[in-house]
Amino acid sequence: MPEERIATVPPVAESDATGKVAEVYADIKSVKKIDFVPNFWRTLASNTDLLESVWTQLKSLMHPEACNRTAKLDPITREIIALAVSATNGCSYCVNSHTAASLKLGLDRETLGEVLAIVGLFNTTNALADGYQVQPDVLPPLD
Amino acid sequence: MPEERIATVPPVAESDATGKVAEVYADIKSVKKIDFVPNFWRTLASNTDLLESVWTQLKSLMHPEACNRTAKLDPITREIIALAVSATNGCSYCVNSHTAASLKLGLDRETLGEVLAIVGLFNTTNALADGYQVQPDVLPPLD
Amino acid sequence: MPEERIATVPPVAESDATGKVAEVYADIKSVKKIDFVPNFWRTLASNTDLLESVWTQLKSLMHPEACNRTAKLDPITREIIALAVSATNGCSYCVNSHTAASLKLGLDRETLGEVLAIVGLFNTTNALADGYQVQPDVLPPLD
Amino acid sequence: MPEERIATVPPVAESDATGKVAEVYADIKSVKKIDFVPNFWRTLASNTDLLESVWTQLKSLMHPEACNRTAKLDPITREIIALAVSATNGCSYCVNSHTAASLKLGLDRETLGEVLAIVGLFNTTNALADGYQVQPDVLPPLD
Amino acid sequence: MPEERIATVPPVAESDATGKVAEVYADIKSVKKIDFVPNFWRTLASNTDLLESVWTQLKSLMHPEACNRTAKLDPITREIIALAVSATNGCSYCVNSHTAASLKLGLDRETLGEVLAIVGLFNTTNALADGYQVQPDVLPPLD
Amino acid sequence: MPEERIATVPPVAESDATGKVAEVYADIKSVKKIDFVPNFWRTLASNTDLLESVWTQLKSLMHPEACNRTAKLDPITREIIALAVSATNGCSYCVNSHTAASLKLGLDRETLGEVLAIVGLFNTTNALADGYQVQPDVLPPLD
Repeated sequence: MPEERIATVPPVAESDATGKVAEVYADIKSVKKIDFVPNFWRTLASNTDLLESVWTQLKSLMHPEACNRTAKLDPITREIIALAVSATNGCSYCVNSHTAASLKLGLDRETLGEVLAIVGLFNTTNALADGYQVQPDVLPPLD
Repeated sequence: MPEERIATVPPVAESDATGKVAEVYADIKSVKKIDFVPNFWRTLASNTDLLESVWTQLKSLMHPEACNRTAKLDPITREIIALAVSATNGCSYCVNSHTAASLKLGLDRETLGEVLAIVGLFNTTNALADGYQVQPDVLPPLD
Repeated sequence: MPEERIATVPPVAESDATGKVAEVYADIKSVKKIDFVPNFWRTLASNTDLLESVWTQLKSLMHPEACNRTAKLDPITREIIALAVSATNGCSYCVNSHTAASLKLGLDRETLGEVLAIVGLFNTTNALADGYQVQPDVLPPLD
Repeated sequence: MPEERIATVPPVAESDATGKVAEVYADIKSVKKIDFVPNFWRTLASNTDLLESVWTQLKSLMHPEACNRTAKLDPITREIIALAVSATNGCSYCVNSHTAASLKLGLDRETLGEVLAIVGLFNTTNALADGYQVQPDVLPPLD
Repeated sequence: MPEERIATVPPVAESDATGKVAEVYADIKSVKKIDFVPNFWRTLASNTDLLESVWTQLKSLMHPEACNRTAKLDPITREIIALAVSATNGCSYCVNSHTAASLKLGLDRETLGEVLAIVGLFNTTNALADGYQVQPDVLPPLD
Repeated sequence: MPEERIATVPPVAESDATGKVAEVYADIKSVKKIDFVPNFWRTLASNTDLLESVWTQLKSLMHPEACNRTAKLDPITREIIALAVSATNGCSYCVNSHTAASLKLGLDRETLGEVLAIVGLFNTTNALADGYQVQPDVLPPLD
C-alpha cells in the first residue's frame, strides 16, 4: 500500500505511552469511540503539552457532549467546516480524516460533491475579489 | 467612511449596463432579492463572459431554487462553507459579504463564533499535520 | 511505482459511466484529444453536477475553439497561468497535470525554469509586501 | 483618498537615501523608466541587503534586457504570472502594482478578465484535486 | 487616520464586559502589561468560549511565565515565528501586532529585514519545491 | 521505501553536471558540508540561471559565514523560520528538509513541538483576525 508521507518525528506508540500521554490516548479512544490512536495524535505526543492542548480544544469544539457543552452546530456541519478548511489548505492527512469522519456521520457522495463544489466556487470568488481588489459594499460592523 | 480597497478596474455602473450585462444584473437582483448590484459583480462585468460564467455557477450552487435544482445542503450551511473558505484564504470582501449573508439568514453571533472557532482549530491542525508530515491512517478510497 | 495519494471516493470507471457522465467523458476525450479520462474527472464524476459544471468552465476557458469562442490568450500562456496558480497553492495533481500539458504544447525545460523562477520571486515579494504591510502607490481604479 | 495599509517600518525617502540605497533607487528608476521609487522598494530599504537582493532578482527576471540576458517569456506573460501569483495569495499591494504594469504593457480589460477567470478556475480545481486527494495519472519525470 | 478594516461583529467594549469576559480582559491587560484590550480580543468576546479558549492557548505559549511553564524558546523567537506565519498568510492585523511586539522586545529594523528576507526566501523555495514536485531526499522519521 | 513525489523534470545527476552547474554543485556540498547534492538543487539545475540565483540567495541568508556576512539571527532561529513558513504553506519537501536541518543543529523534539505549537496557534489567530476582519489597533509605521 503506497504511503503518502511519514511523520518527521517518530510517533509515540500506544504501548510506549505513560502518564499524561497515556491519559490523553485513553480519552481520545473513549471520546471518539475508536480502538486505536490516530497517527496525528501519536505524532503530537512527541511534545506532551502540544498533545494535551490540541486535544482539549478539539474535544471541546468537536465533541462538546464529552465536555458537557452544548454546541450550536450539529456534528456533520462541524466536519464539513473541517473539510472545507482542509481542502482549501490542501492538507492531505486532514482531508482524508475529515472525509472519513463525514462519511461515517452519514454524508453521502452526492452531498460531499456539493460541499466540495461550494469550496471550489469560493476559492474562485476569493481569487477574483482579491485579484480585482473589489471594494466592500457591505459595511461592517454587521449589527 | 474608510474604504478597504478599490477595484483595479472601474466597476460597470448599473446605468451603463446593456445587453448581457444588464440581463445578468437584473437576474442577480431578482434571485438575491436585493435592490443593488454588489461591487463584486459590477467589477466582473468588465469581462462579460466572466460575469456570466461566475454568476451561473454561484446561482446554481447558492440559489438552487432559482435553477429548479434541489440542494443537499441548506442555505445557512452553504454560507458557512463560504465563510470558512474566505476566512482561511483571508479574503476581506468575501468575509464581509458571507458574514452579512449568514447573519441575514439567522446565524447569531454565538454561532458565528463557533464557526470561526472551528475554522481556527483546523487551520492549526492543518499546519500541525503538514508541519509534522503525519502519515495517513485512514486509507482511501473511503468506500 | 509509488503513488502520492488516492482519491477519497472511488473514481467512476469509464466502463461504469452512463448517461450524462458518459457524455462528459466522451467530450473530455474528444476535446482534449486523449484516449483515457484523467483521474480528476473520474473522481468528480461521483457528483454528476460537479463533473458537468467544472468541465463546462474548463472547456470554455482552456479549449475555447471547442466552444466557438475566441480566446485572448494563447494555449501555452493559459497553461502557464494554471501552473503558476498550482505551484503557489502546492497542489500536486495540478502541478503534474499542467506541467505535462505545458511540455506537450512545446514549453521547454529552460522556459519552465523561467516560469517557476518568476512564480518563486513573486511568492517572495508577496510575503514581503504583506510582511511589511506596504502601502499602495498605484491607486486604482487603473483607468 | 483612503489608504489600505501603512508599512510597519518607515519607508526610506529618496531624499534620505545614501550609498548603496541611493544607487539601487537610481537603478530602479532608470530600469523601470519611472520618476519615483515605489513604496515597496522604499520599505525594503530599511535593510540594505534585502533591498539589493530582491532588486537584483527582480531586475534579472523582469528586466532581462538591463542585465544583458535574453528572457524566454515576453514582458506581458511575465506580468501575467506575477498577477496570477498575487491574486492567488491575495496580496493587495502586488495585485495593484502588477495590474498597473500589465495595463501599461497593453493588456486590455477583456484580457485581464480572461487572466483572472483562469486564475479563478484553477483555484477551484486545486481545491477539488486536494479536496478529493486525486491520484496523479501523469507520472513524472516528464521527459 | 485611514483604517484598514472593521470587524464584522461589534467588539465588546471594556465598559460592557461582565463575568468571564471581564475576567479574561483583566488577565490580558495584566499578563501583557498593557492598559487596553486589543481589538482582536474585544472581537473574540462576541463568543465567550472562543475568547477564553484562544486566550488560554496564547497565554500558555506566548506568556509561559504567567502559567508557571518554562518555555524552550525565548520571547523574541516566539514573536518571530508569529510574524513569519502572519507574513506568509498575509494577515494584516497579525503582521501589525507581531511587528509591534517584536520591536517592543528589542528587534531592530535590520534584524526585522533579515527575518522577512528569510520568510521571503522560503516562500520562493516552497513554491519551487511544490512547482517541480521535488522528491524528498531526507527520509523521515528523523530520529 | 515509499516516495512522496517525483520531480516533474529529471534532476541533473552530479555525474552529468558541467560548467556553472558543476560549480554550484561543488559549492553546495562545500558550504553545507554534505557529500551529495539534494534533489531540490539537482531539480533546479534544469535551468542554470534558476539554480545559481536561488543558491546565491540561500547561501547569503542561511550560510552568511560563507559570504563574509554577519547575520543578525543565529542558525537555529533561521531554520525555525524556514520550518514555520514551510509548515504554514504545507510544503512536504521543505518541511522534511528544514526539520532535518533543525534537528542536526540541536533542536530537540520538545522544542520542535513548541515551534509547531506556535505555528499552529498563529494559523488559528490569522484565520480569526481575517475571519472577523479585525481592525488594527497598532498603527504603523512603528517607529
